[in-house]
Amino acid sequence: MSSGLRGIRLAIVGGDDRELVLIPELVKKGAYIKAIGFEKAPKLEGIEQAQTLQEAVCGVDAILLPMPGTDERGVVKAKYAHTPLQLVKEVLQLIPPSVPVFIGWARPALQTAAKAFGLRLIEYNSLDELAILNSIPSAEGAIQMAMEATAITIHGSRSMVLGLGKSGFTLARTLQAMGAKVLVVARKDGDLARVYEMGMQPIHFMDLALEVGQAEIIFNTVPTLVLDRVVLDNVNRDAVIIDIASPPGGTDFEYASFLGIKALLAPGLPGIVAPRTAGKILAQVLPKLILRQLVT
Amino acid sequence: MSSGLRGIRLAIVGGDDRELVLIPELVKKGAYIKAIGFEKAPKLEGIEQAQTLQEAVCGVDAILLPMPGTDERGVVKAKYAHTPLQLVKEVLQLIPPSVPVFIGWARPALQTAAKAFGLRLIEYNSLDELAILNSIPSAEGAIQMAMEATAITIHGSRSMVLGLGKSGFTLARTLQAMGAKVLVVARKDGDLARVYEMGMQPIHFMDLALEVGQAEIIFNTVPTLVLDRVVLDNVNRDAVIIDIASPPGGTDFEYASFLGIKALLAPGLPGIVAPRTAGKILAQVLPKLILRQLVT
Repeated sequence: MSSGLRGIRLAIVGGDDRELVLIPELVKKGAYIKAIGFEKAPKLEGIEQAQTLQEAVCGVDAILLPMPGTDERGVVKAKYAHTPLQLVKEVLQLIPPSVPVFIGWARPALQTAAKAFGLRLIEYNSLDELAILNSIPSAEGAIQMAMEATAITIHGSRSMVLGLGKSGFTLARTLQAMGAKVLVVARKDGDLARVYEMGMQPIHFMDLALEVGQAEIIFNTVPTLVLDRVVLDNVNRDAVIIDIASPPGGTDFEYASFLGIKALLAPGLPGIVAPRTAGKILAQVLPKLILRQLVT
Repeated sequence: MSSGLRGIRLAIVGGDDRELVLIPELVKKGAYIKAIGFEKAPKLEGIEQAQTLQEAVCGVDAILLPMPGTDERGVVKAKYAHTPLQLVKEVLQLIPPSVPVFIGWARPALQTAAKAFGLRLIEYNSLDELAILNSIPSAEGAIQMAMEATAITIHGSRSMVLGLGKSGFTLARTLQAMGAKVLVVARKDGDLARVYEMGMQPIHFMDLALEVGQAEIIFNTVPTLVLDRVVLDNVNRDAVIIDIASPPGGTDFEYASFLGIKALLAPGLPGIVAPRTAGKILAQVLPKLILRQLVT
């Protein structure tokens, strides 16, 4: 196996169902694993369960924090933890600067703390490979939400996708494959040309308020307020908005509700709708990333 | 409009959300409508609401019963009815033999009664056009159920479809478009060749027990016991079975449950997951059918 982890000691701190898929894959690749935050999880074979956060992060080559990182108080998201795993000063100062700390997405407070303690914080959420692979369960989750929220089929629907980033691209392509009439709203001329090449209808963001009325389902992927009052005033009252941009999304939800338009903010979809697939994706991406960071 | 219904008097007896879409379309085409069984529905414009079943079926050119027909006691399925609409002798004998009675699917008892009273019963469920159009919401509903029941994405999954009838075909094609690895189990050589032509993996029903183990999601469309004990013994314990064949389906559900395999029997999906689309489909197919029957 090209990405063998034999002899490498990893601390896995917290996580959810994705880590339950990831951990056995890391074990299979030969990693030695100290885990914490899985006390209430189904039994994991071939790993050491640490008793304290201090014990977990000591004497390892790399530390893995989960995709959603920590909450605002620095407590690591850990679905199966017995007690909260808080990244306090006493823990952070135990981590040598040579040990990479992988995390999906770090809050500003953790980034600041990492600087203060000289930590090598590596955000894997921003990796192109991971973001594109994760866009698959994201898109399917968004489509599932749309199926549940509407009385029409995706097939034959006028579905509008705002933004042609990694998620928007996957979403637009999947909707089209299912038989939807897809309209993609983008800003860059290159993106609009790509939309046209793919046989979908390109719309410039400048024309959003003008064109949004024809959409039956609106998927937003842009994390700034694009579905504002002016745009919402033009949305069909029967349309459904599925907002998969990171919280708080790109929709004026209060105004949508006032207008009687159904608008839903999607939670972090991959870990919820397809934790097995999302765990396999981590297992595919992280070993390469760990090896690359340990070599340099 | 080629399928104008001007001057035609129709009785609409019962139904669900599909009829709420169908009725306005029939009104738009110029039909005069007497309806019963919509007392609790949102207001329907431009129609006459009959007070009794007798009153509804008298003096009309055709009678429309809903897709799911009646229950075992001859009560018409009517989601918004105030009182049960039972097709008793006193009602049936009021209907002249020249008046076609359209129904999605007639139970044997109703077929027998129709013969006894000389009724012109026409089952529209068996029309190719309607069955193929309805296979779209069926397939999407089945996929939605699979999304909800599994921890993996459709994309990349090994999805097996039993039967290449109208539903099986649409389902296999949609799954493939979404990125699944599709295996189709069929019996006819021509069907197996078509599966191969479409780039999917053909499997003969004779080899089902041998090959079923590789499937992560199994969709059954065959209304006879195909997923029997022998086959189920070979199904992966993590696999999910979505059975969309008409009740009681083609799965030994009791044995599946005994083995710990998640197996779900889908209800009549089009009317539930996409009543608006299913109503539009009826509005597209029924006017042509009515006109054809009134001419002959």
